[in-house]
Amino acid sequence: MIVRNLADARSCERNVVSKGWESARLLLKDDGMGFSFHITTIYAGAELLMHYKNHLECVYCISGEGSIEDLATGQVHEIRPGTMYALNLNDRHILRGRTEMIMACTFNPPVTGREVHDETGAYPAEEAA
Amino acid sequence: MIVRNLADARSCERNVVSKGWESARLLLKDDGMGFSFHITTIYAGAELLMHYKNHLECVYCISGEGSIEDLATGQVHEIRPGTMYALNLNDRHILRGRTEMIMACTFNPPVTGREVHDETGAYPAEEAA
Repeated sequence: MIVRNLADARSCERNVVSKGWESARLLLKDDGMGFSFHITTIYAGAELLMHYKNHLECVYCISGEGSIEDLATGQVHEIRPGTMYALNLNDRHILRGRTEMIMACTFNPPVTGREVHDETGAYPAEEAA
Repeated sequence: MIVRNLADARSCERNVVSKGWESARLLLKDDGMGFSFHITTIYAGAELLMHYKNHLECVYCISGEGSIEDLATGQVHEIRPGTMYALNLNDRHILRGRTEMIMACTFNPPVTGREVHDETGAYPAEEAA
């Protein structure tokens, strides 16, 4: 059994800070769960173009408000506490934080902890070992 | 892109009510994400013996307080908002809700939506199709 808490993860190398967001990675690939699990903070006013070409992601909004724009269709979905979106088609999207948003994020395959978004908004596929 | 919200899931067949808990299954196997994702309510005072022999589960506490007892070691871990536990060893455990707890749960392999806990506290492995 692995037990971790958000405050600890935020104060160590599990916390990754980037432009417009930061993410505390509570579970990573080496935990052997087959997925990774992160608590991500989207800053108020952030507008993030993202495209996870190599990962499926589920995001659940714990607090805050914003929207997600599906760039394949142009459709904009409101995000509020209790909203879940799943990028089952590796959907290219823009995430907007109207307020700060706290999100629970699950990635499959799991993130290793070393990724940063590349110029297309993707995380790279894991390199062969 | 799949977008769902908790209130809708709680008011339809995605919500499963059992003794001491209920769970709104926002993502299931047929969504094709490779995991399932549920928002589960543990009722105040619940004491639940569970053993997912066929699934790995990650649980993140959004609200409420309680504890988890690892039956392999006897160790009791406090659960508060921000606590995450992962049953990476299919850990047999007792979950106790001191107050009502709202938990974000990810299962690998994904739950199909038809499972109930059997007499051992497990979900069955999926039957061959």
